[in-house]
Order: sequence, then C-alpha cells, then structure tokens
Amino acid sequence: MAYRALTEQEAVQYVKELPGLFSEGADLSSREIGDGNLNLVFDIREEATGKSVIVKQALPYARVVGESWPLTLDRARIESEALQIQYKRVPELVPQVYHFDQELALTVMENVGDHIIMRKGLIEGNRYPLFAKQIGKFLAHTLFYTSDLGSHPYEKKALVGRFINPELCKITEDLVFTDPYENAPTNNFNPLIQREVEAIWQNKPLKLEIAKLKYDFLTRAEALLHGDLHTGSIFVTKTSLKVIDPEFAYYGPLGFDIGAVIANLLLNYAGQHGLQADPGERESYREYLLETVEDVWNEFVSQFVQLWHKQAKERSAHVEGLWESYVNRLIQDTAGYAGCKILRRVIGLAGVADLNEIADEQTRAEAERLALAIGEALILQRTKIGESTDITDLVRSVTAKFYQEAATV
Amino acid sequence: MAYRALTEQEAVQYVKELPGLFSEGADLSSREIGDGNLNLVFDIREEATGKSVIVKQALPYARVVGESWPLTLDRARIESEALQIQYKRVPELVPQVYHFDQELALTVMENVGDHIIMRKGLIEGNRYPLFAKQIGKFLAHTLFYTSDLGSHPYEKKALVGRFINPELCKITEDLVFTDPYENAPTNNFNPLIQREVEAIWQNKPLKLEIAKLKYDFLTRAEALLHGDLHTGSIFVTKTSLKVIDPEFAYYGPLGFDIGAVIANLLLNYAGQHGLQADPGERESYREYLLETVEDVWNEFVSQFVQLWHKQAKERSAHVEGLWESYVNRLIQDTAGYAGCKILRRVIGLAGVADLNEIADEQTRAEAERLALAIGEALILQRTKIGESTDITDLVRSVTAKFYQEAATV
Repeated sequence: MAYRALTEQEAVQYVKELPGLFSEGADLSSREIGDGNLNLVFDIREEATGKSVIVKQALPYARVVGESWPLTLDRARIESEALQIQYKRVPELVPQVYHFDQELALTVMENVGDHIIMRKGLIEGNRYPLFAKQIGKFLAHTLFYTSDLGSHPYEKKALVGRFINPELCKITEDLVFTDPYENAPTNNFNPLIQREVEAIWQNKPLKLEIAKLKYDFLTRAEALLHGDLHTGSIFVTKTSLKVIDPEFAYYGPLGFDIGAVIANLLLNYAGQHGLQADPGERESYREYLLETVEDVWNEFVSQFVQLWHKQAKERSAHVEGLWESYVNRLIQDTAGYAGCKILRRVIGLAGVADLNEIADEQTRAEAERLALAIGEALILQRTKIGESTDITDLVRSVTAKFYQEAATV
Repeated sequence: MAYRALTEQEAVQYVKELPGLFSEGADLSSREIGDGNLNLVFDIREEATGKSVIVKQALPYARVVGESWPLTLDRARIESEALQIQYKRVPELVPQVYHFDQELALTVMENVGDHIIMRKGLIEGNRYPLFAKQIGKFLAHTLFYTSDLGSHPYEKKALVGRFINPELCKITEDLVFTDPYENAPTNNFNPLIQREVEAIWQNKPLKLEIAKLKYDFLTRAEALLHGDLHTGSIFVTKTSLKVIDPEFAYYGPLGFDIGAVIANLLLNYAGQHGLQADPGERESYREYLLETVEDVWNEFVSQFVQLWHKQAKERSAHVEGLWESYVNRLIQDTAGYAGCKILRRVIGLAGVADLNEIADEQTRAEAERLALAIGEALILQRTKIGESTDITDLVRSVTAKFYQEAATV
C-alpha cells in the first residue's frame, strides 16, 4: 500500500487484518492520542477483553511552534528497529513491536498507556524508587551490546549503517548544539532572562566546550543511542518503566543518552523553585532528585562494567586500566551532554513543562536562571568530575550560590 | 557478467569494448603485474601510441605469507569510489578512474607506471623535495572535504554509510592494533628481537595506550581515510606523486592516515642503520627523513587550517579556539597511530622492505630494535607533543640513547 495517513477507522481495519493480535470479528475502538505534530498515534482497544495496541504512524512532516517542515518517513523504520534491538536486551523496559510496515511508516506495538509520562510524574512530585535501577539497566544493556565492546565488529558496523539518521540528527545538531548559543530565530526563551541568555552567547569558553561536545556527537559512533532520552520518552508506574520513541536513534557517544536522563532530572530540580511552594517539601524533593541522579549513574556504571568484565567480545577490552579510563571519560561526557540538554531546554525551541508550567513569569525566570547556571557549570567543569557525587556536589554548590545571590539582591 | 577472474586476453577484450579509451582495432598488449595475493593488475598498452591503462580486479580471497582466507569483493567498489572522491579534490595526486564494474569487481584506471613505489625510492636513497607538499595537500584536502567540517551533514552521513568496510577494517583491527601486542600466531618477527617483543607484550602502560587508540579507530568516524597510506601506496617521480590502493578506505580518525605516512618515513629512518653503511651519508639521509616528517605535518596542517578558515561549512567551526584544540589533539593522535604502525611492521604479519632488505640478521635486529623504541616513545609520549619538531626531537633522543647503549655494550 502506498503511503497515506490513516484515519481512525482505517487503523482499526489495518490491525484487524494482522494475524495473531485480535480474534476475527473483534469489536475494536480507535482513538487518536498523538499531538499530530510528528506522528499519528492510535490507541486501538477491544472493550470486551481490555486488550489494546498502539498503532504509530509517522507523518511526512514535523510541526513545532507553528513551523512545519518535511521530515523523512524513514524515522519510522529507525524507531521500529531500535525498539526491537532494545527489546531483545531489556524486554521488560521497552514496548514490544508486533508489526512494522515500511510503506505506511507504521508500527503496531504494545500499549503502555497504563503508565504515565515520567515528566508529568515528577511535576506532580511523585517518587519512583525503582527508576534508577530500571533506567540504569536500560542504558547499560542497550549501550553495551550495541558498542564495539559487546558486539562483533561486523555486526556493529552493519548497525552503524542501518542507523544512519541524518535528518533527525540534524535536528539535534541544530537545536541542542548550535541555535541556543547564538541569536537564532528558532530560540524561544522567557524575555525576562534575556540578559543571562546574551551572556551565554558571549561566553567564549562555554561555546568552545559546546562545540567540542557537538563535534563528538557528530563523529563518535560508539553505541546505538536512543537519541532523545528525556523524561517525556520514559513511561512509568511505581513498579514498571518503559522507554519509548527512539526515532532519533543513531550511533553516537554513550554520554549523550545518560546525560539526557540526568539533564531532565535536573530541569525538574530547577523547576522545583516554582513548582513547590513549601521550602521543606522543595528541599526534600530536590534531595530525592539528586539522589536519583547519583543512583542513575551508579546503577548504569555498575551494570555496564559488569557486562564489560563478563561479556566483552572486543579482544582489547581486558587490557588493564581500559575500563577505568573509559568510565572516567564517560562520566565527563555525560556531564557535558547533560549541560547542553539543560541549556537548550531553557533557551531553544523546545522547552519543558517542568519550567513552562510555572505560572508566574518572574518565578519561572528565576528557575530558568538556576537551570542555566547548572547547565553551564556541568559543561565547563566536567573535566573535574570523577564520580556521580561530583555532579550532585556541583549542582548543590551552584544552587547555594544562586539562593545566596538572590538573598542579597 | 557474473564474477570470474579475467585472463590477460579477456582483460584486453574488456578494455577494447569500453567507449572512449582506445580506437577500434587498436593493437593492445596485456601484462599481469600484480602480486596475485589480493588482486589481478593488468597493464594494458597500445604500443603504437604508448597509451596504457590499468585494469585492477579484486580476487575473492587474500593470500599473505602462505595463508589464504576469503575476502569481500566489495572492496573493489570501496576503492573505486574512494579514488573518485579523492580525484575530485586533488586530481593531480590520484589516478583517474575511467570505469568501474561492480559484478567483476574491476576498475579501469590511469596507469601511473612511469612512477616508482616510494618505499623503493627511499630504500634507494632518493630524495623527493616535493613529497611533503604533495602528500600534505592530499591529506588536507581529502580529509577536510569528507569531514563534518567541510561537507554537508547529510552528505557526510551518506558517505559514512557507503564506506562501511567491515572486513578490511577487521584486518587493521587485528594486525595493527591487537595481534602484535600479544603472542598471536600471525606475528612474524626476527627471532633475534624476541626479548624486546616480549617486553612489549608485558608493557601494560603501552598496551593500555594502544587499546585506547584502537577504540578510537573503531569509533571515531571523522573523515574518509585512505586507510592504508604507507609508502607502498604512494607512487612518485621527482616531480609527481600519486596515491593508489584505497581499498581500506572507511570513516575513521584523521590521525590514522597522517600517522601512516610518518610511520613509514620513520621505518625507513630506522632501516638506514643497515641500508646505509657510510655514517655520514646515513646521518644526512636521516636528517632529510626527519625534515620530511616535519614538513609533512606542517604542510598538512597549514593547508588544513586554511581550508577550515575559508571553507568550513559546519556552523560551529568558527567558534574561537576550536581549530587550535582540534589540531592539538590531531598531532597527538598522529604520533600515536604512527607508533602503532611502526610496531606492527616490526612484530606483526606484514613487514616492510626498509627493514627486511637488511641482509645481515644482527644488523637488521638492531634496526628493528631502534624502530620499536621509536614506536613505543611515540605512543607513550604523544600527549606531550604539540608540534612537528616535538615528534622529530623525540626520534632524535630515542636514537641518541639507542647508539649510546649500543656503544656501551
């Protein structure tokens, strides 16, 4: 079938014709639940049994903040293949793919609608005690087994070829690594922080470090990344976690994925300035977030290093000192990428609800200034970072300075 | 036509049928001039006009030192496409491709048979005053324009996909970066240096640095490399230079190509210990070689940086300080890769005539020990290197120490 965007009824019909999903004559309902900016997302459900699936179809364009531009349908293939590779490693943490249709750029997959978007959960002040263990495992396994360490050299190179993803990488290259650091038309920030944003545009040491991080993003084909691992791509319950939407998947530096998780925890941390009015509650939730940052890294690294010792196929992997040197570099990359991801969410095109939902513009501007200070410190001081507490210590000291200065104004 | 290895007569017939090369009824002779280990190479010539072409056909196997293993015919496509990309940038430095036949894994190209193999020229003690300028230009232009700096992000990523070259990369991964540093069956070294080779197998800091360089070779998709740029892939006259045989081409770290050139100059430098009996002549030729090492880097870097300033398309390329930081890292990579390339030529499967042609085993062992000491120093001390004279100073000091120790034995 040649590509066309499906209607709700066509989506139902499509699913009915797939073998093994629903019984013949099942009574299915369909509801489009996507935001319509990039994809159609149909929730298809059999009321009688409660069984449901998601049909996700890529649209041939992207719409963000009123703008619209053409965007490759190949991202549906990338997403579907990435999901399947991740599922093979951590089936409990990724929705199962039932069917992929290249022509229609359409994937039929497990419905994780009983979970909620983690960003929403954090904004509501929920705690997820299993989150660090779960996301640490996701990161360790998906990254290790697609890297040169955990896969055969032929297999890794074949995957690099299958995950060449120029159009979606270009979005990251522009919106994460370039536009926010100059006066670009895509930027979209609170006018109250104009002074701080302009200071970033003038900050030469910062821009140099971001350019280096960008160059590494462009060139270091280390592992199959999710590529967009913010808390809006993570669905959670108190006990379960599902990582969705890997359409930005490509071979890049591991620290970019780990940094994305940490950045989004820290964006919520900054947002607490306006999200939580009670100082005691705010402090307590922030401590929870910082502990989670530490735990995410610690869980990741302990599982990753264990895989390295037990499963590494690369012949040089067991050379003495290599894993320590690798991990040391990786936490610094992680901090740097976390910093870029924070800055871009404050200055660039796509903001986050953790900040945007702060109703009062002044309060929001304060939270945004704190986020900028944290992002900047992570980038500029990343070479001093050796363990996860160095990251949280840095955040604590930036925060203390921030409230001190606010108190003296 | 399905693949089969051509006979000399079939090669003539094949060329005759190509439009535009020879006139109908031309009287052509054919001579197979390859070594038959990897490829058939036919020199096809019209005596009446002196016109000639090369027909190079890949064989579906590789034979080295008696061993034979299957090897992908796709390397003929890689070689032919790499030659054409390089020709586009530096047509005077690369043989022109007239025709490529995917089925037959066969390329018809310009005959550069009026040149000689540079390795041979160096062993004969010739000097090539234009060499550094020429190879510096080749490196600067072919690397710059295929990197993220000099090409559009979509174009670069498409090229990465076209130059995924798993089988030939695996040969490098094994023979340059792994086998020589352990007691591997492929190794093939002079029994007289057993002690020095075993010391390398035990040298943990050295093995760690080599493992890091290997990891970068595996992951850093920076530019389309030639991939095997030793002095046997460079054809020269006093005025002209042609780079041939890019069948190992793939996207990797720039320093690997530059390091290969420098390594092979330094292998000849070490070989002078046995190639040149007259101490004055030896000293003078070694000075010429070290000046050439400096000039190769200096020519490369000045042309590369000029291209960067004038032609860089990457939006972040002009961030203050980036090119300096890039070049600083690059010369260190270059030294490291040069070191690996030297070590592997002494210990590993494929030696070089610069050493192997030294008839006396004892003298050859001495030259090989000097080469090992130079290679080791380049790898271990590369982070102290900032400019080309740091490389040659290092070589001079290793050499002085070597002769001092020899004198006290």
